[in-house]
Amino acid sequence: METWMRFMSSDGGIAFGRVENGYLHEYEGIDQPVPTGAVLSLRALTPLAPCAPGKVVALWNNFHALAAKLGKAVPAHPLFLIKPAGSVIGPGDAIRRPSSYAGKIAYEGELGIVIGKRCRDASLEEAEAAIFGYTIVNDVTAAELLNENPDFPQWCRAKGFDTFCAIGPAIVSGFDWRAARVVTTLDGTERQNYPLADMVLTPAQQVSMISHDMMLEPGDVIACGTSLGVGSIRDGATVTIAIEGIGQLANTLTAAHAQQPTVVAMAGQE
Amino acid sequence: METWMRFMSSDGGIAFGRVENGYLHEYEGIDQPVPTGAVLSLRALTPLAPCAPGKVVALWNNFHALAAKLGKAVPAHPLFLIKPAGSVIGPGDAIRRPSSYAGKIAYEGELGIVIGKRCRDASLEEAEAAIFGYTIVNDVTAAELLNENPDFPQWCRAKGFDTFCAIGPAIVSGFDWRAARVVTTLDGTERQNYPLADMVLTPAQQVSMISHDMMLEPGDVIACGTSLGVGSIRDGATVTIAIEGIGQLANTLTAAHAQQPTVVAMAGQE
Repeated sequence: METWMRFMSSDGGIAFGRVENGYLHEYEGIDQPVPTGAVLSLRALTPLAPCAPGKVVALWNNFHALAAKLGKAVPAHPLFLIKPAGSVIGPGDAIRRPSSYAGKIAYEGELGIVIGKRCRDASLEEAEAAIFGYTIVNDVTAAELLNENPDFPQWCRAKGFDTFCAIGPAIVSGFDWRAARVVTTLDGTERQNYPLADMVLTPAQQVSMISHDMMLEPGDVIACGTSLGVGSIRDGATVTIAIEGIGQLANTLTAAHAQQPTVVAMAGQE
Repeated sequence: METWMRFMSSDGGIAFGRVENGYLHEYEGIDQPVPTGAVLSLRALTPLAPCAPGKVVALWNNFHALAAKLGKAVPAHPLFLIKPAGSVIGPGDAIRRPSSYAGKIAYEGELGIVIGKRCRDASLEEAEAAIFGYTIVNDVTAAELLNENPDFPQWCRAKGFDTFCAIGPAIVSGFDWRAARVVTTLDGTERQNYPLADMVLTPAQQVSMISHDMMLEPGDVIACGTSLGVGSIRDGATVTIAIEGIGQLANTLTAAHAQQPTVVAMAGQE
């Protein structure tokens, strides 16, 4: 089992690697990580999301307890939507209420699968080998938008707003997800506490099946779906999602008026 | 009005730029294109999709004639799904039937908006300025998957398969979309012929509204939705979508058994 994290260093560069005893052992790449030789003190580093996915594939209805509560059949194939790369934030980053939306914003604590190897039409074995490790995802949702239009459920929009995909704090390779639970607290009050063993489609099944539909790239993340206890975050509240063995992912919802003004059209900047 | 295309050169490199009189005048970048000085004969170049979008935002129900036929109200805000970058193919590339899907595969001829400048919370004016130009999109769809599960319409999966997003052949800046029509032919028979002026939300409105939800990046594509005449492509048939002033986008559907075997897990390769 190894813990991998991604940081911004004081000079603005990005460093990725293995974390051990207060130090980052820097590596290049996620499909065949190669040590660079650099060892950096964590005190000089600011955590970012532990990877930069091209896409986040987010599952709906993948836990038996939730399916039972909703009165729905469990799926035979992953039922998913895509959250764009621009929605991703890391540990401690603010979830920003969109200026155009005043309704409920919900947290959804989930296990995240991080893809390590480019993967397509994978067997279960190949899928298992393609998984780099596991992380935590908050699949934040503008709940009242989902069914606002009776003709078209707006899954991508409701879950795709900028900052609506918190990932982190780390990726743990060799993590035993079957023994773990997801515990979500809202301003210190426990709201979710569910066993990952209650998953309908396992991570290897998800990766195998989704890879038969779409190429999965190194760094892509699959959010495994959530279970009971989803609720709203009031402006200013902090959601903390904990999976023992991975860590805690904490993010605070900021109200629209409390935010920094956004630069609307930035030509050529990166 | 200028025509921009993207090519693979004989040495395997990628060249982007302005096309004029049989030559490519090469440029770097799409948000502030800078000429490199290179001028290449088109005879040495193979067309690719004219940009490499991080995401494709695809609209549903954005034409009055189609809304009327479906008996649905026209939307006040774009109703969209996200097609992943891995679904994108270019002019002449094969649309590949997924090995796991034997049902109807439909074509949808659409106008595509190519974003030129990073764009968020854009006014209509800022949105207009953020548009680099216009292209053609075939929003290919596994039609029978959409409502296969009664609890969850599978928009992202049905439209997100690898090769299910043909873009091209060119991006035309300064293109007057209001005067143009989309004409789709299937093996030479005309199947769609609709006026772009029948759009519900205009390109500037789409860019402005979507940019209030999600950051739009240079190279991202918004597919404006299709109108009447959507139908299935039988295996082996060629769909050609023409917009006068932009060009023709032609792609052939290949059957699963006729395809090259896919490499399932490619470690470290790019």
